Amino acid sequence: MTKAEIITIGDEILYGQTLDTNSHWISGVLDEINIRVYQKTTIGDDADQILGAFREAEDRADLIIITGGLGPTKDDLTKPLLAKYFNVRLRMNEEALSEIASIFKSIGRELTEINRKQAEIPENCEKITNRLGTAPGMWFDVRGKVFISMPGVPFEMKAMMEEILIPKIAERFGKGVIYHKMIKTIGIGESNLAELIVSWENDLPENIKLAYLPSLGQVKLRLTAFGNNTGDLEKQTDHLIDDLVPLIDRYVYGYDDEEIEGVVGKMLTKSGSTISTAESCTGGFLASMITSVPGSSKYFKGSVISYSNEIKTAQLDVSEEDLNIHGAVSEPVVKKMAESVRVKMGTDVGLAVSGIAGPDGGTPEKPVGTVWLAYADSKKTIARKVNFTKNRELNIQFSALTALNLFRLNFSSN
Amino acid sequence: MTKAEIITIGDEILYGQTLDTNSHWISGVLDEINIRVYQKTTIGDDADQILGAFREAEDRADLIIITGGLGPTKDDLTKPLLAKYFNVRLRMNEEALSEIASIFKSIGRELTEINRKQAEIPENCEKITNRLGTAPGMWFDVRGKVFISMPGVPFEMKAMMEEILIPKIAERFGKGVIYHKMIKTIGIGESNLAELIVSWENDLPENIKLAYLPSLGQVKLRLTAFGNNTGDLEKQTDHLIDDLVPLIDRYVYGYDDEEIEGVVGKMLTKSGSTISTAESCTGGFLASMITSVPGSSKYFKGSVISYSNEIKTAQLDVSEEDLNIHGAVSEPVVKKMAESVRVKMGTDVGLAVSGIAGPDGGTPEKPVGTVWLAYADSKKTIARKVNFTKNRELNIQFSALTALNLFRLNFSSN
Repeated sequence: MTKAEIITIGDEILYGQTLDTNSHWISGVLDEINIRVYQKTTIGDDADQILGAFREAEDRADLIIITGGLGPTKDDLTKPLLAKYFNVRLRMNEEALSEIASIFKSIGRELTEINRKQAEIPENCEKITNRLGTAPGMWFDVRGKVFISMPGVPFEMKAMMEEILIPKIAERFGKGVIYHKMIKTIGIGESNLAELIVSWENDLPENIKLAYLPSLGQVKLRLTAFGNNTGDLEKQTDHLIDDLVPLIDRYVYGYDDEEIEGVVGKMLTKSGSTISTAESCTGGFLASMITSVPGSSKYFKGSVISYSNEIKTAQLDVSEEDLNIHGAVSEPVVKKMAESVRVKMGTDVGLAVSGIAGPDGGTPEKPVGTVWLAYADSKKTIARKVNFTKNRELNIQFSALTALNLFRLNFSSN
Repeated sequence: MTKAEIITIGDEILYGQTLDTNSHWISGVLDEINIRVYQKTTIGDDADQILGAFREAEDRADLIIITGGLGPTKDDLTKPLLAKYFNVRLRMNEEALSEIASIFKSIGRELTEINRKQAEIPENCEKITNRLGTAPGMWFDVRGKVFISMPGVPFEMKAMMEEILIPKIAERFGKGVIYHKMIKTIGIGESNLAELIVSWENDLPENIKLAYLPSLGQVKLRLTAFGNNTGDLEKQTDHLIDDLVPLIDRYVYGYDDEEIEGVVGKMLTKSGSTISTAESCTGGFLASMITSVPGSSKYFKGSVISYSNEIKTAQLDVSEEDLNIHGAVSEPVVKKMAESVRVKMGTDVGLAVSGIAGPDGGTPEKPVGTVWLAYADSKKTIARKVNFTKNRELNIQFSALTALNLFRLNFSSN
């Protein structure tokens, strides 16, 4: 397996001024040609540190990709330090010079001495054309390792990678394949999920790695397969997933880039059905998740946000008796909310949420985090009670996610 | 000068699946207390690599901050490797155990054996409370160097840093006293703001730093004062702000942690007034911003989300004539929406939004990003048209922010 490292050079990244998105992008494109990034290092415009980073990376990796530090100004050290590191001289590259000259000509500016110097590169490297800027890229194939140096300007770097370097790297290292598959779950915690699949996980073959990636209310399982052929890895992974899914069937809502709100949207689109929401504690957050999906106007008609009890009564026909006897956070009230909004908005499904988001409003019987959710269609109304956290923001997010999951588990198109 | 390094652990970052924003954020907050990050390293879930990174970082830096690899599952290696690195054992931390138990209790889930183990930490470290998750942080002060280990979940990490670690780091490395004050503006761009305050900025004393922190639709001005006494710095900063505010009066909506939705809430609470919203393109996002504020049930009654034209007509009395002649994204429609929801929900103020969020639905006259907003109270209805971006998500967020700013500029309690 080819090991790659990325070295990002620039004070502006270390001091928190510029978010480094280059190394993230490079990781992604290398992954696609089956090269694994083993380490990323970010350092400032400091000669000793830069030379140290080159040495350490050469010890560990086969491919070292360097971005940044190639501009024409004093603090740009990468090029002279690469020459020093390989113990070679800088030499004028005539092709690079004519490329730089033509860029200057095209913008009607004169070539300065500083810009001419940008065409000087270490004598042991191959020049990589920078179509969109004046700092050429460099390719060093030395002592069995490849060093690549590129400017840090994202669009220049990306064009060089896509047009020249990715094919060149693939040719130079073309062996070994990586295949990823993400299984997305909702409604179960990381440790409970781990317990359900412990024997499946223990039996995973050597070439497959499993990672748990938790986020709010969800856990993603990422399978990474290593081998020689993508088709074979895909088959192998599919078989493993066939064994996995029955163990956690109820919790799996999608794969790879799918999101729960998108899955809900697809279910509605596929069956030509429509939905509306009646929300109390989520205060519009559930509707805003549904409408975050492009094209949601095809299946989402509208909502009533009934934050106060008067609005629950006036707009959603919740009876004052139910409010007095059971309270706003109760099964009869949330069921009525779902049924009423469905009728009022003329939709196939109504989803409702009523709960105590906090920080105030809790009681001993109904502490902060108590939430009732309901799903209503033409045949049934289903309600569920959950106890979330003490944190208002998390309670709102958890409630909306759980409502979408309630839809997923109960919706059928006829 | 104290030297810091950041080590980020996680395969998902190396493979280009997760963009590392943690180290960027940490660099920024360390910079504020005059600690320079000299290197950032990202590595995978691999024991040798992690131990190697610890060794190299200890050679170079005074403060080593590690994020990631603290979950309860097998691929989380940071904690046992820290114990191995310092040649100590893991020991159950009773305080951490009771904190984890109370988190599980609050969400009504059972504590598993795996979660109990999260409370075991290396015997030579100090536990750092994780208020929002189950993996405690760790503080090691060994051989004159400080190692800090935190979970990689951004909101858990940020709360730990802000509430506990930043003051602790500042004290440990003798950074003197730092005082921050944030002035928050809305409705003006960074460069226009800079022009309005240029001479004030040029006159700032040596010990005060100004940073422009732009975020969606807003620019925050952060003053950082360095000295020996917090009271003195506070006084000095207050005087500077007294000079600043008259220059940008119309745009300043709050200070420090205040958010526009909180400021709107305070204005309503102070005058005992109530509000409702009628939303089309924001799809509930405006209501969910208003209700994200604890205690918002005192002034927010409810909303009608009228995503489809039928619902605009049936629930908000928008005339079919106006929809046909002017379209749903127009001044008469958005005004009627604000006026109707105000009456329907029985509130003092109605806010309405109707626009084209995209990606579809644009026309040459009304391209994607065209949004009409309206404010209605008992005396007036005010509408405003804005042109935002081509991006759906940004358009939704801009629209809701702008609606809240429309309220701020037009609301008066009588």
